[in-house]
Amino acid sequence: MYDLPKKIQINEEGPREGFQIEKGPITTSQKVELIDSLSKTGLKQIQIVSFVPAKVVPGMADAEDVVEQFNPVVGVTYTGLWLNEQGLQRALSKKKLTSRGMIALTASEAFLMRNQRRNLQENIAAQRSIAQMYRQYGVPVEYMALMAAFGCNFEGDISTERVLEMVAQMKEISTEFEFNTKVLVLADTMAWATPLSIQRVVGAVRNKYPELRIGLHLHDTRGMGIVNAYAGLQLGVDLFDAAVAGLGGCPFAEHRGASGNVCTEDLVFMCEEMGIETGIDLDRIIESALLAEQIVGHPLPGSVMKGGSLRKLRQKLNSVQ
Amino acid sequence: MYDLPKKIQINEEGPREGFQIEKGPITTSQKVELIDSLSKTGLKQIQIVSFVPAKVVPGMADAEDVVEQFNPVVGVTYTGLWLNEQGLQRALSKKKLTSRGMIALTASEAFLMRNQRRNLQENIAAQRSIAQMYRQYGVPVEYMALMAAFGCNFEGDISTERVLEMVAQMKEISTEFEFNTKVLVLADTMAWATPLSIQRVVGAVRNKYPELRIGLHLHDTRGMGIVNAYAGLQLGVDLFDAAVAGLGGCPFAEHRGASGNVCTEDLVFMCEEMGIETGIDLDRIIESALLAEQIVGHPLPGSVMKGGSLRKLRQKLNSVQ
Repeated sequence: MYDLPKKIQINEEGPREGFQIEKGPITTSQKVELIDSLSKTGLKQIQIVSFVPAKVVPGMADAEDVVEQFNPVVGVTYTGLWLNEQGLQRALSKKKLTSRGMIALTASEAFLMRNQRRNLQENIAAQRSIAQMYRQYGVPVEYMALMAAFGCNFEGDISTERVLEMVAQMKEISTEFEFNTKVLVLADTMAWATPLSIQRVVGAVRNKYPELRIGLHLHDTRGMGIVNAYAGLQLGVDLFDAAVAGLGGCPFAEHRGASGNVCTEDLVFMCEEMGIETGIDLDRIIESALLAEQIVGHPLPGSVMKGGSLRKLRQKLNSVQ
Repeated sequence: MYDLPKKIQINEEGPREGFQIEKGPITTSQKVELIDSLSKTGLKQIQIVSFVPAKVVPGMADAEDVVEQFNPVVGVTYTGLWLNEQGLQRALSKKKLTSRGMIALTASEAFLMRNQRRNLQENIAAQRSIAQMYRQYGVPVEYMALMAAFGCNFEGDISTERVLEMVAQMKEISTEFEFNTKVLVLADTMAWATPLSIQRVVGAVRNKYPELRIGLHLHDTRGMGIVNAYAGLQLGVDLFDAAVAGLGGCPFAEHRGASGNVCTEDLVFMCEEMGIETGIDLDRIIESALLAEQIVGHPLPGSVMKGGSLRKLRQKLNSVQ
């Protein structure tokens, strides 16, 4: 066990996750309202859209309009997601967005075969093409990400060896293309992780690559999002993806009603109460979460947005005394 | 940090919590159906009713009928809750129930004043009367419990000193009445705990009273139920209260839609995946949770009941290969 970090960074993915999966319809101005609300919370990085074909993800048909209309705040980085060259070109044409390249592999071959009809080796080759594309467009690549690093609904448990092998492959591509990769995000895409597997996988990766900053992308589908984040904190992990109000849900059909990404304000709450700085104003992000719930029109999974912040309660109690 | 325990005990409080707080109407036979379902999961202790006046808690008006009609399983202990002599008499008249006395104090004076119009000293005196009652009726007293041990919506943070003082008072009553108290349950009644305060409070109590078995009664109102349980496990805590499907909700008006007790099957899932034995069959308790949701007629907060057990997925994957 390490000491808990003094300070962590949370990358917000709620708008992109939420608008992508919610049935809606959610208007462009509602999307802009949520993004503008999040911009005032102290978040430093917000992923606001994905540039994917409208016929695949109808909720992202207005991605360009959203980028056009939101009001950027100085000091906040706004990003978009893309999956191919066409998407990257759309993102690069938007000066309000920062384009961050990422080398991404998936630890589960069964998941790859099902979703992209590729085996592990073919996926590694595909990442070389993407790396080539980043070099061609001059997109800096600081991030590596490994999906399904803790287990897979279609393959089962993922071994530590598999994880290390995939990280080695990403490091190799990185060296080959002279990318300055500094961060490795381990994603629990299908919510298989528990605190012990977080310890096992993060521990093994860090032992082998102590120079990498490790981030966690956690899903709460089985209720382990926050405890897995805590297991990460106990290992000194200081970078997390999260989604306001737990926006996003789980895309797998068999998990009806299940939560998606770990909830930003619940993570902020835990950190704040334990003296870990996030730079995010909890009461403001609770307001954003309530706004998100109002926009989507149904209850969202976040807890602190319903239970309330303790700072607010303490202030009330102090003012009474 | 200790090693995680090899085995824990979970005391189920879902039926009592749920029937007490749900608007209903829930029929007696539905209550019996849920209790009978829980009896087949491997749970060793289930609190099924509370003996309180029907005009205060209408959902418990049929407590006697529920006890009459459920089908006890050998090896499972069924308990009821009472708050005064009349309630105790009602419980004692039911041979299917095991009567367990408990000395209980509350760490927050503001909470006591608000709910029972007593200060800390008056509450200690009241516990002496209750202890007297237990002696008179020959009810064994093995449990002590401290409510609001981690913080209070009406008083704020609770100091470690206050906790230790209250435990000392309960130990004193216990000695005075020659009770064989062995267990101390620390309750996070209003969901103020985080992993660090669990460490602080459990650590301080155990340093002073190493002979006591410590249990945790955790609420999930701010989403910290499971992570707080994990913090307890890391300290070797091996006794937890929980509620199937997260039945119960939060009784405080300002927390509309917030969860109540930590969810039994989510806790079982975490333990099972980390090799900690609970004696509870996860797939069976997920069935009970789905039944509970069907009975109350609205979504309940449990996660694994929506996300699904990994054991089941692994079985499916193995049978395909």
